[in-house]
Amino acid sequence: MGKGEATREAVLDEAGRMARTVGLGGMTIGTLAASTQLSKSGLYAHFQSKEDLQLQVLEHAKARFVAQVIAPALSAPRGEPRVRSLFEHKLRWDSAPGGCIFTSAATELDDQPGPVRDRVARDERDWRDTIAEVFRTGVAEGHFRPDADPEQFAFDLEGVFLAHHLTSRLLDDSTAGERAWRSFEQLLATARVS
Amino acid sequence: MGKGEATREAVLDEAGRMARTVGLGGMTIGTLAASTQLSKSGLYAHFQSKEDLQLQVLEHAKARFVAQVIAPALSAPRGEPRVRSLFEHKLRWDSAPGGCIFTSAATELDDQPGPVRDRVARDERDWRDTIAEVFRTGVAEGHFRPDADPEQFAFDLEGVFLAHHLTSRLLDDSTAGERAWRSFEQLLATARVS
Repeated sequence: MGKGEATREAVLDEAGRMARTVGLGGMTIGTLAASTQLSKSGLYAHFQSKEDLQLQVLEHAKARFVAQVIAPALSAPRGEPRVRSLFEHKLRWDSAPGGCIFTSAATELDDQPGPVRDRVARDERDWRDTIAEVFRTGVAEGHFRPDADPEQFAFDLEGVFLAHHLTSRLLDDSTAGERAWRSFEQLLATARVS
Repeated sequence: MGKGEATREAVLDEAGRMARTVGLGGMTIGTLAASTQLSKSGLYAHFQSKEDLQLQVLEHAKARFVAQVIAPALSAPRGEPRVRSLFEHKLRWDSAPGGCIFTSAATELDDQPGPVRDRVARDERDWRDTIAEVFRTGVAEGHFRPDADPEQFAFDLEGVFLAHHLTSRLLDDSTAGERAWRSFEQLLATARVS
């Protein structure tokens, strides 16, 4: 990784932190320059516009998400163990300082048409597809009922993550993680072959 | 209702619509003046500051929420019928143009300490308490298992509403309502006395 690339990565890390707090829309090249101690003109060498910065922040976060959540889950045994691993790693991702950038961005941008919203929606579709695909390995392995609906499971599991996000972040409620696990175990119990 | 009060109500309706689109933070006295065709000085007679405006918007929305969601549910028979009515009215509330202002505000403000965040958190706690209380009437009536956990039900049901919000608003997915109903029926099936 060259020096320019290393700087760009460091700036995107910091921008991701800012975006989780003030939102993608609240982040500016000016405030990012101040917090990274780089010049605004230096930043413009990496990011042509605020929109370009927002898209790169999402791209950067997506790469981290794949490395920290999806890759570890896919290395777990197919079926229920893989679903458990996906849940565990996603809950850890959501529990990091600032929470999940995709969750914040989803609510922030749902009414603001444009390439950034399109990108967030695409990432959300990819994520639901991943949950459904991982769930399907559980049907194939005979862990879950053949008539279980993988897309419904993805919807329900996303609900658990969103409730956890709200409960831990807005309500500062330390039972959020435990509640999320109980919801998850109930979803599995409902899906399991009896 | 006097003329001043009627104006204030109309302005708060419009401010609520704006807040659901651009966020409570994105709303300004200036843009509100433009969209209501009132003078900024006229608006300052009603709202001392942007924070005061945000708090009044939330107060106003809360009164509508009580009238449109909670009051109808409380007039339904105790137990499962009341839980169903609460779910149905809340889903309708969330499906109105712009979605639920409390849901948008919760994600927007979870990292921004202050009286507005405190207010949103208090409203969220009240809402969870309401769900749990209504669920408890179902335990008392013998519809739900005595060992069912009303706070866990409130957490799970909030997850269903949040997943519905994201699915319908970010993904523009027309199956969101149907999926939310399926999740809800499953939660009831799990809670019911067998």
